Amino acid sequence: MTGKPKILLIGMGGVGSIAAYSLTYTNKSDLTVVVRSEYNTLKTTGFEIKSIDYGHIESFKPYKITNSISDAVSENGGGGDGFEYIIITTKNIPDITPIETILEQCYDDESENKSTIVLLQNGFGIEKSILKKYKNANVISIVTMISSSLINNVVNHVGSEFAKVGYFPNGNLSSKEQELSCFKLIELYSNEKNKIEYDPDVKWTRWRKLMYNATINPISTLTDCDIGRLNIFGGDETLLRPSMIEIINIAKSDGCELPYDAIDSLINSDPGVYYSPSMLVDRRKGNYVEYINILGNALDVANENNIEAPILKTMFWLLRCRQMKLMEEKGRFELPEIRPGPEDGFEISYKW
Amino acid sequence: MTGKPKILLIGMGGVGSIAAYSLTYTNKSDLTVVVRSEYNTLKTTGFEIKSIDYGHIESFKPYKITNSISDAVSENGGGGDGFEYIIITTKNIPDITPIETILEQCYDDESENKSTIVLLQNGFGIEKSILKKYKNANVISIVTMISSSLINNVVNHVGSEFAKVGYFPNGNLSSKEQELSCFKLIELYSNEKNKIEYDPDVKWTRWRKLMYNATINPISTLTDCDIGRLNIFGGDETLLRPSMIEIINIAKSDGCELPYDAIDSLINSDPGVYYSPSMLVDRRKGNYVEYINILGNALDVANENNIEAPILKTMFWLLRCRQMKLMEEKGRFELPEIRPGPEDGFEISYKW
Repeated sequence: MTGKPKILLIGMGGVGSIAAYSLTYTNKSDLTVVVRSEYNTLKTTGFEIKSIDYGHIESFKPYKITNSISDAVSENGGGGDGFEYIIITTKNIPDITPIETILEQCYDDESENKSTIVLLQNGFGIEKSILKKYKNANVISIVTMISSSLINNVVNHVGSEFAKVGYFPNGNLSSKEQELSCFKLIELYSNEKNKIEYDPDVKWTRWRKLMYNATINPISTLTDCDIGRLNIFGGDETLLRPSMIEIINIAKSDGCELPYDAIDSLINSDPGVYYSPSMLVDRRKGNYVEYINILGNALDVANENNIEAPILKTMFWLLRCRQMKLMEEKGRFELPEIRPGPEDGFEISYKW
Repeated sequence: MTGKPKILLIGMGGVGSIAAYSLTYTNKSDLTVVVRSEYNTLKTTGFEIKSIDYGHIESFKPYKITNSISDAVSENGGGGDGFEYIIITTKNIPDITPIETILEQCYDDESENKSTIVLLQNGFGIEKSILKKYKNANVISIVTMISSSLINNVVNHVGSEFAKVGYFPNGNLSSKEQELSCFKLIELYSNEKNKIEYDPDVKWTRWRKLMYNATINPISTLTDCDIGRLNIFGGDETLLRPSMIEIINIAKSDGCELPYDAIDSLINSDPGVYYSPSMLVDRRKGNYVEYINILGNALDVANENNIEAPILKTMFWLLRCRQMKLMEEKGRFELPEIRPGPEDGFEISYKW
């Protein structure tokens, strides 16, 4: 059998759309995308893309578009081994949509030709629940520095795509095999417009990205302030810097030395622009936020290694309560009319 | 000269309105109230009061109503010594309206017959800036356990009025004099419907109230959750209890022993009701919040005495950034179009 390697890409947000476009542009793979809420738009008119890398594309329609994972699988002949890579670009919100519920529909851990799972998502420790459930899974990490957002079917891609591709080590697989699957993906993904690099140390890269995501994201979300306003309103030395130091300390306990001198450049990132981090944008839209993969999993490491991280911990619980409130508002559960007391042993029962 | 003692009461919110009604009902003083935004309503139709203590009052109009402090002073003959008591019941938000700007209009620290200043307000250390500016000031504290709110010109008074009246010690005055002014006020204020007690230890009483106000208030505000939801969503052991312990520790360093066993009853206060604390109500209305007098002043004591209070400190700075954002939205200042960098030395210039 010849033919291009098949890739399933799940999620067409700002980041996923550029990934899909990059793969289409490179044209070395046979791509199917799964998109839910914007399915009809994408299928009929496509997305407009305004890209710093690719210029202005009036209408981008991937060749194969489905609105469910099961459709993608059955159109591909059925079974859990049809795709060489499954790239997941959705938000990582295990309290709402655990990633296993996605994989159950398209991944077969027992197959000879099992897919390689690619997580193009934020956060730390996001591979753990997958490796616990699927002993043979080859899970690849993409950490991207892209700035791209999808608003009203227009992809606004303002920061050039620079991605690092590496693997989450799985003791049941050879590191050679895992490494090769990374290089092959880089080959399918790279073109002269983007920059895709091999990442020899995914854990370090993900800790390094948490220096931004676990600090600037929750602080801006809880204060309703973009990064520029945090600077001006007194957040630098009271919230941003000390929380970044907490991340440095936790990462160190996990064997990763992060650069202290990155703190100042992170605090002053996006110079000249009152940049609203993605979690703040999500909050303002009334979307769920990725507080578990970004803060919770880092705090698990802190707890295991007895590292103090009071600012991160406080923000985790504040965000958790907010997220629960949002779940209630979205009808995920109902509370009793009379507030239950501690003696009632009330427990939330989720609807779906 | 005979005549009843003159009282100036500033602010007719939920708490201030009941105080004004209580003084009117007792009818032992000559009361003038200052009310700004609801002046016309109060003057023409009055406020409706639904009170657990006084029953249903269709229209309450105090005898003397003014819409500015200066009007009250001039109608009273001018000068800063016309009122025996000046009761301030407005929100205590020194970042927006420092209390000194109120007193400048009605208080004369040099007068023989100077007024006694009465703070019917939340928070800790709220007397300090007054005593710093006015060396001879006799400042009285009222801490009230009332539950009363003003919504659409209706005062909903659901929790009985129980107030403690004591003095903030001023070394330039005799304690006898300060004590007597408390007892006289109690006499003018008390009636058979309310419960007004002398408070021999204002500092302790105010720390004790911070166990609620400095914890449940900011946590509910930052999470958008009432107290019942905080219980259910996991806030008890992660935010509420540890922040209350921080208050206990700070108070102890300030010489006040607070009861640990109050924690459980505070966490489970207002049983059966999803009660939204006042700061959360303010936030939802888009009002400023009292984060300085409630959290900031307590943290000043923590800093002086080297007491760790990481949860309170984190919440203080989160609330500060939110408040600054709100000030910007309300037009209090403008930011440059291009985000300034650290080298620009930008400073906010406030408009009023």
